[in-house]
Amino acid sequence: MTCNLTAIEIAERTRDGRVSCVQVVKDSLERIEATDEAIGAWAFLDSDLALAQAEDLDARRRHGKPLGVLHGVPVGLKDIIDTADMPTECGSPIHAGRKPGADANVASRLREAGAVILGKTVTTEFAFMHPSKTRNPHNAAHTPGGSSSGSAAAVAAHHVPLALGTQTNGSVIRPASFCGVIGFKPSRGIISRTGVLQTSATLDQMGIFARDLGDAAALADVLGGYDPLDVATYARPKPAMATGAGAEAPVEPLFAWFDLPFNDRLNTTASSAFDELLEYLGSRVERVTTPVNFGDLIDHHRVIHEYEIWRNLEERAESHWDQLSETIKPILTRARAITEDRYAEAVAMANGADNYFTEFFNDFDAILAPASAGEAPIIGDGTGDPVFCTLWTLSGLPALSLPVLAAENDLPIGVQLIGSVEEDDRLLRTAAWLFRTIQAPGEDPTRTENRAEK
Amino acid sequence: MTCNLTAIEIAERTRDGRVSCVQVVKDSLERIEATDEAIGAWAFLDSDLALAQAEDLDARRRHGKPLGVLHGVPVGLKDIIDTADMPTECGSPIHAGRKPGADANVASRLREAGAVILGKTVTTEFAFMHPSKTRNPHNAAHTPGGSSSGSAAAVAAHHVPLALGTQTNGSVIRPASFCGVIGFKPSRGIISRTGVLQTSATLDQMGIFARDLGDAAALADVLGGYDPLDVATYARPKPAMATGAGAEAPVEPLFAWFDLPFNDRLNTTASSAFDELLEYLGSRVERVTTPVNFGDLIDHHRVIHEYEIWRNLEERAESHWDQLSETIKPILTRARAITEDRYAEAVAMANGADNYFTEFFNDFDAILAPASAGEAPIIGDGTGDPVFCTLWTLSGLPALSLPVLAAENDLPIGVQLIGSVEEDDRLLRTAAWLFRTIQAPGEDPTRTENRAEK
Repeated sequence: MTCNLTAIEIAERTRDGRVSCVQVVKDSLERIEATDEAIGAWAFLDSDLALAQAEDLDARRRHGKPLGVLHGVPVGLKDIIDTADMPTECGSPIHAGRKPGADANVASRLREAGAVILGKTVTTEFAFMHPSKTRNPHNAAHTPGGSSSGSAAAVAAHHVPLALGTQTNGSVIRPASFCGVIGFKPSRGIISRTGVLQTSATLDQMGIFARDLGDAAALADVLGGYDPLDVATYARPKPAMATGAGAEAPVEPLFAWFDLPFNDRLNTTASSAFDELLEYLGSRVERVTTPVNFGDLIDHHRVIHEYEIWRNLEERAESHWDQLSETIKPILTRARAITEDRYAEAVAMANGADNYFTEFFNDFDAILAPASAGEAPIIGDGTGDPVFCTLWTLSGLPALSLPVLAAENDLPIGVQLIGSVEEDDRLLRTAAWLFRTIQAPGEDPTRTENRAEK
Repeated sequence: MTCNLTAIEIAERTRDGRVSCVQVVKDSLERIEATDEAIGAWAFLDSDLALAQAEDLDARRRHGKPLGVLHGVPVGLKDIIDTADMPTECGSPIHAGRKPGADANVASRLREAGAVILGKTVTTEFAFMHPSKTRNPHNAAHTPGGSSSGSAAAVAAHHVPLALGTQTNGSVIRPASFCGVIGFKPSRGIISRTGVLQTSATLDQMGIFARDLGDAAALADVLGGYDPLDVATYARPKPAMATGAGAEAPVEPLFAWFDLPFNDRLNTTASSAFDELLEYLGSRVERVTTPVNFGDLIDHHRVIHEYEIWRNLEERAESHWDQLSETIKPILTRARAITEDRYAEAVAMANGADNYFTEFFNDFDAILAPASAGEAPIIGDGTGDPVFCTLWTLSGLPALSLPVLAAENDLPIGVQLIGSVEEDDRLLRTAAWLFRTIQAPGEDPTRTENRAEK
């Protein structure tokens, strides 16, 4: 059974022939068959199509053809990411049966890396707030979070070691926190969004779900790169993600903790868990106040998001209003009334925050922050509050959710680390340090010989 | 002085701060200033623009930003490859001062790798046969070959460690042979041609000039990748070039030698040099006869090339006929008369040859063949006969010219190795073996401890 291996372990074994790609995919399909009825992580899954990809990859190996770094690794794609050979329905009946006919940039890059695109994972309606059918694999009475609900749940349930999502507010970091997996949203502009549903050109960013930090980094290396069709991407060197995740911090990292104006939205469990974590980290964390009004920025984010989502969905919404959820209708109604002046002001204020953060990371390795208001809410209470992700998405900073805390009911709670823009490698290095430190309490985390095996 | 270092050595030193990117570029510019009057390798060179790129790269390092694998390495681009910030004139007065405004795919990939695009190297008119102003750095009375004349000469003259060219018939391998550098034309479809002058969609392929095999491989790794805008590229794993160039052959490679119907075009010097080489390699080379009529294929190649070049240049040629050279005019006149039937026949025959080669490399690691008819002809006798490259370009096979032979007048003569399609890594591994073997005669090349330092 290969479902408990990391992606890197799977690729090592398929490349050297210890296991076939077909076997890996069969294991995934079997695991999904056994558990997905209760979870509902998958929007589209065609066993034959998945096995055909695996057979092609096994044939490449037999014929001595080049193999990719993710040879035979099954990956789930959020159902707003286009694939040439599968439907992409964006979580809306408006797009039922839609076949885009071409791969998104990230889908092509996965194929170049020899990955198997196993299927499409459930998204909330248009990657927005209306809850999907997916349940939390840790407790089916709770939400997996959204909007990348299926991707987070599929990785948590060991259906796949890796999945792709997107984040416009908190759609990667929050479900990762709720599902107890690693969520990684690289710096804005590293991963192309060509062929992915656009909700907000300013805010939409690609993200990754994994159970292993090295896996998340390896996938980010595969997906990142300049794409002339996405103006957010750039033709300059990008962080070496896997190198960063495997690197030793030259000195103990220093974290910043903000007393955010919305920290009162943390639930009691999360609040005391973070108090304990801060106490444990001691002088490695500095409490910081900022000249930037974070509370205002939350509202500016909302204005940008709503103004742009209306313009992206306008045509579809007007011709299919009846097929929209009752969650999105009032938002769209509000969104169409936002003036250009109000939008321009929000964009200007967001740029000001970007400038603040440019200097900020001279003094700190990462910001340490909640990834969500606590553990996953019960089904019926929505997909959770995204506010703990809003600032970092708005500023395009790289962010990670690390599954290191837990509530009393055993549901996971993520710790978020936020890094300097385009220094995702340093953020991954800092995250690796934090993992080791928390997993080996009482030991000196800076001494290699004491490090716990991950 | 960094001009004698390999690209990999330069990048190691700029990355760890032993030398600045600005110093590397200054060294290149100084070398060009001192020697290019006699050579004429450069079509466009703006010191300020080159130094500004180097300053940006040095600033990235100071600010702790990610650095690329070719950090600060100056690279020359054949003047048919578009760059956003420099003119691209295609060796024709028709395009004098043309500023494309966008980077070719390969130019973007160079920037992603942190290379410095030093300037544009001289091409023959529209990458065809009319000789350019460039002279052979080994002897200015001789041609550097064409059509990538300036790229081959610039690398041979140590202006830059790396340069890019293109090959539609013999435009990389032949000038590499004449200039005594490594020429590498990867398998068709590995490197995108978007933003490069199209002369023949079927035949045009990107190529690399280097003085070091590892450099050539590293650059191919940087440049290769799927591009949806170039239908020849593909979204499947590609050969790991640098790994291939650094790998040990598991057994002594076996070479095939064809008694080609045009081998009588080899000059006496080259003919006896190859006789000696074959004798030296002994049982490692097998003389092979083939069911494919290579002589016919040369003509099919000509038909495809001419039919397509006419369609690509038609508009420009008709409106600027007076500005065309007397070399290209009669070719274009002949080309426009080729019928669609004749063209379709040529394409079908070429596909037949591809199928033959698919099986061929089960038995052989590489084909060993001349890279040119001999050493560089004297100026006035054209850019040399491309026939020794035609078959391999037509079939899209990866090809290398290795500078291991010399004529009595000390002008270099290349040995060509041709590999299995999309197994460029194996070809590079075989080439590394041949280099070591020839450079350490009398020793057992399969024993690591006997290997000469390259």
